[in-house]
Amino acid sequence: MKFIIIGLGNFGSHLGMRLIEEGHEVMGVDNSSAHIEMYKDKLTHTICADSSDELVLRRIPLDESDYIIVSIGEDLGASVTTVALLKKLCQTKIIARAISPIHHTILETMEVNQIIEPEAEYADEFSKKFGLKGAVKSLALDNKFEIAEIELPQKLIGKTIQNSQLRNKWGLNVVTVVRKTISKNIFGKTVRGRNVLGVLTPETILEEGDILVLFGLYSDLRNFSEHMETSF
Amino acid sequence: MKFIIIGLGNFGSHLGMRLIEEGHEVMGVDNSSAHIEMYKDKLTHTICADSSDELVLRRIPLDESDYIIVSIGEDLGASVTTVALLKKLCQTKIIARAISPIHHTILETMEVNQIIEPEAEYADEFSKKFGLKGAVKSLALDNKFEIAEIELPQKLIGKTIQNSQLRNKWGLNVVTVVRKTISKNIFGKTVRGRNVLGVLTPETILEEGDILVLFGLYSDLRNFSEHMETSF
Repeated sequence: MKFIIIGLGNFGSHLGMRLIEEGHEVMGVDNSSAHIEMYKDKLTHTICADSSDELVLRRIPLDESDYIIVSIGEDLGASVTTVALLKKLCQTKIIARAISPIHHTILETMEVNQIIEPEAEYADEFSKKFGLKGAVKSLALDNKFEIAEIELPQKLIGKTIQNSQLRNKWGLNVVTVVRKTISKNIFGKTVRGRNVLGVLTPETILEEGDILVLFGLYSDLRNFSEHMETSF
Repeated sequence: MKFIIIGLGNFGSHLGMRLIEEGHEVMGVDNSSAHIEMYKDKLTHTICADSSDELVLRRIPLDESDYIIVSIGEDLGASVTTVALLKKLCQTKIIARAISPIHHTILETMEVNQIIEPEAEYADEFSKKFGLKGAVKSLALDNKFEIAEIELPQKLIGKTIQNSQLRNKWGLNVVTVVRKTISKNIFGKTVRGRNVLGVLTPETILEEGDILVLFGLYSDLRNFSEHMETSF
């Protein structure tokens, strides 16, 4: 796919590099020559220019890309001006980064195709880690349901999925289990890896160090993680 | 739990509010009086001060909190000075936000308990969405298995979970389904929300606009998303 990323700050530049690694084409636009210098050999193409200037945008092949990502990080004015000009000049799908709730609402009203709020969304996920004891990672599906990776409580070691009563007693569905692996890196240092067991059978036996990938209500996950911890 | 958050920018303030919602105590520290004014009634306690000043930090009850989160967003110097002073003055666990790879390496060397890079980590996840056509969100469990939200392909509208053949034909497990809801924002503009259906039965009927939450091999997810798209 072809992408234009406007704003090569910490977020935009990271995103650009990952997209390149996954085989996409990425044109980067930024008004800082330092940013352009840094990424000119890493992205497919770079342009040092002010994207809130209509004449500048007219020179960029906007309609030839699949997505335009406006990842301007600090300047709300530059972000919304750029989005407004893009809406005027092309039909390409626009993904815009919001830096505050009011910025989000403005972008919503401008009908961009997708709004992302990296810092706020990350904060939402990160805060949950402190509520769910033993939680490693989680994905909130809405404000009630969640998928969370939780360390296997001591009590469940050696039990089968069927006997764990996760479904009946705790109301939780086991999506899968992540089993830890141990290997050595090039410096001979022990490093831990992760091996997902895939779809489980009711007979799958849980082992020490396993991580349960659970789906359920956030309240049920919390209940499970708290109860299990206190009974250690 | 008790938290001290140093830096109430977009990330730190969001994190603070979420932690409060989850029942934790949060003390916020920021050198901007505008930020303090905004969050003084929302957080447990706020202090307007420069955290890179040792005399300031000495007045804060650092050892009484469970975690100190240094979420200074732009000023690398202020971030590392604050972390160094905290290491000197208390034993509390420190979570620090890195704003660039070199910042990450410096924090690593300073042995903070956890380093987070919200923008970079979000970019990593977000870039994957473009490998899976129709994917909304995804959570990589290891380098083979993934949980992904994928828009319901036209072909499956009106089918039941059982008849969708997601398991038999595509090797994918349906964790749940997200159904879209519609409401209005402050400008009277229609905005979309999300409602997770919870645990499904084989008889659950899939509707237009649904998002499937699927678990499976990344290769199977990719296969499904590509094949389904081309047959529209």
